[in-house]
Amino acid sequence: MDKLKVLIGSRQAPEIEEMLSDVPTGVEVRFLPHGEPLRDHIADVEILFGHIGEDAIPEATELRWVHQPHAGVEGFMYPAFKDSDVMLTNCRGLYGTQIAEHAFALLLSLTRQIPTQLEFMKTKHWERVPCIELAGMTMGILGLGGIGKAIAARARAFEFEVIAADAEPIAKPNTVSELFGLDGLMAFLAKSHILVVCCPSTPETHKLLSHAQFNQMPDDSYVVNISRGKVIDETALIAALQSGKLAGAGLDVTYTEPCPPENPLWEQQNVILTSHSAGASQHIRRRAMQLFIDNLHRYVTGEPLVNLVDKEKGY
Amino acid sequence: MDKLKVLIGSRQAPEIEEMLSDVPTGVEVRFLPHGEPLRDHIADVEILFGHIGEDAIPEATELRWVHQPHAGVEGFMYPAFKDSDVMLTNCRGLYGTQIAEHAFALLLSLTRQIPTQLEFMKTKHWERVPCIELAGMTMGILGLGGIGKAIAARARAFEFEVIAADAEPIAKPNTVSELFGLDGLMAFLAKSHILVVCCPSTPETHKLLSHAQFNQMPDDSYVVNISRGKVIDETALIAALQSGKLAGAGLDVTYTEPCPPENPLWEQQNVILTSHSAGASQHIRRRAMQLFIDNLHRYVTGEPLVNLVDKEKGY
Repeated sequence: MDKLKVLIGSRQAPEIEEMLSDVPTGVEVRFLPHGEPLRDHIADVEILFGHIGEDAIPEATELRWVHQPHAGVEGFMYPAFKDSDVMLTNCRGLYGTQIAEHAFALLLSLTRQIPTQLEFMKTKHWERVPCIELAGMTMGILGLGGIGKAIAARARAFEFEVIAADAEPIAKPNTVSELFGLDGLMAFLAKSHILVVCCPSTPETHKLLSHAQFNQMPDDSYVVNISRGKVIDETALIAALQSGKLAGAGLDVTYTEPCPPENPLWEQQNVILTSHSAGASQHIRRRAMQLFIDNLHRYVTGEPLVNLVDKEKGY
Repeated sequence: MDKLKVLIGSRQAPEIEEMLSDVPTGVEVRFLPHGEPLRDHIADVEILFGHIGEDAIPEATELRWVHQPHAGVEGFMYPAFKDSDVMLTNCRGLYGTQIAEHAFALLLSLTRQIPTQLEFMKTKHWERVPCIELAGMTMGILGLGGIGKAIAARARAFEFEVIAADAEPIAKPNTVSELFGLDGLMAFLAKSHILVVCCPSTPETHKLLSHAQFNQMPDDSYVVNISRGKVIDETALIAALQSGKLAGAGLDVTYTEPCPPENPLWEQQNVILTSHSAGASQHIRRRAMQLFIDNLHRYVTGEPLVNLVDKEKGY
């Protein structure tokens, strides 16, 4: 019997690739040679760990399953892949903890004036500056998936009132006091002193937050975005920061990445940009590979895969 | 009958001083003129809001009660005051929330590399950098008073194992899994990936953390100090940072304040200094004045004052 061919297209550190010695029997694991195009190595591959672009699809005649070793899957939403029978899984569920920590790093850096204090350090200048206490404010979480829930749990301990808005009819966890649908977005925003963007990039969320939405928020609010830059109309965000409507923004993501030099966000007061690092963790590569290996065992034994992406919805 | 004379020595913003219109009848409130020494205005004062130095004590023959509008009281621990019958109250209990937020701002700024990202912004440079995920680590809280407890509650939601050490035989709150006395300090430190210093400055805590104590901690640990710089032997701290034993330190306080220009902490890698700002909050002045006014009503009616300081213990 032919071996089941697995291609590791997204190369990992040696200690992570070594974890693949634990694959089921009958599975052959290959590694995409560094610098070579996927389309030259995909012809007989049934399972791909990594991204596949439109150019390689015609060659991928045996492909049945792609595992995206990250959470976002918008790069797979082109017709030739979306309309195919190829299954797509991702790493959702592995990011909640570190992204929640990153979201609080952004927010608390703004409210406790860490950038100002770091500037003071350069001239050995000791000066107390006003800081904002967050307890008692309302945090609005846009997108209550695994990451949103991890943020909500921490926000409760920080004595926030926590509300959320989600496109799906999900159950309200105990950490959240009020849950809105996207039809309730404006009512949700009107209550949110702190807006944390945790939703995926989909056609429905594209520039969902624009002038009217930011204006709906209370004065001196903060925006934190740790999911996707495309959810925010950056022209509107910059206007809201410049008018003083928003007191600050902590952005791990921007509309275009890498954030281009001409983007005014680089120089906007009270903005912190962190180069799409929120998912970074000393544990993430190991966790992501373990998820793939566990799914590989399921695939071989015919069990349903975990983290299957709904290609219609785009997440 | 003579009016009860209250002197506001620590001047406040007009909207805060206006709150004193709510004092009990029979109380006369005066304000220390800006720039004038306290000793010239203390002679017939029974209650002082603010600090009194050794030079003014001989004049303060009517003084019965001093309210320190901050939490730390080490500035009152000189013999002429300590041995007197004058009662001392402070603002403990009003700082837990904002100082806990500040402690997490310092810690998360270090682990999520906020200083590096802020430097990148200056050259419009977008680069993901490694970050440390904190969940699952053990946070050791040294000094489990109101501030320590506020930090413990947040740390639990951040998925820390939380342990604490305290000089007093206090009850263990549910947020803390193990509580040590100061005789267990070394065992406590051996488990603490993150050490948060929350204890007051007393003779017992002076330079309590020195070479042996930092060496006792796990490798790549972090130290956060949001209470008093005198608890740390800074030479030992710098040595532990330079040897790589400690991965970073977030310090709101230093041994001498303002931190002098010759202090190497200003230029030490992986150190964030924040100019004793942890207590800052948009709410604190109002809260502190309200506590004083409430105590003033108690004083007049003969009820026991809240937040009475034990001058023997020094807190």
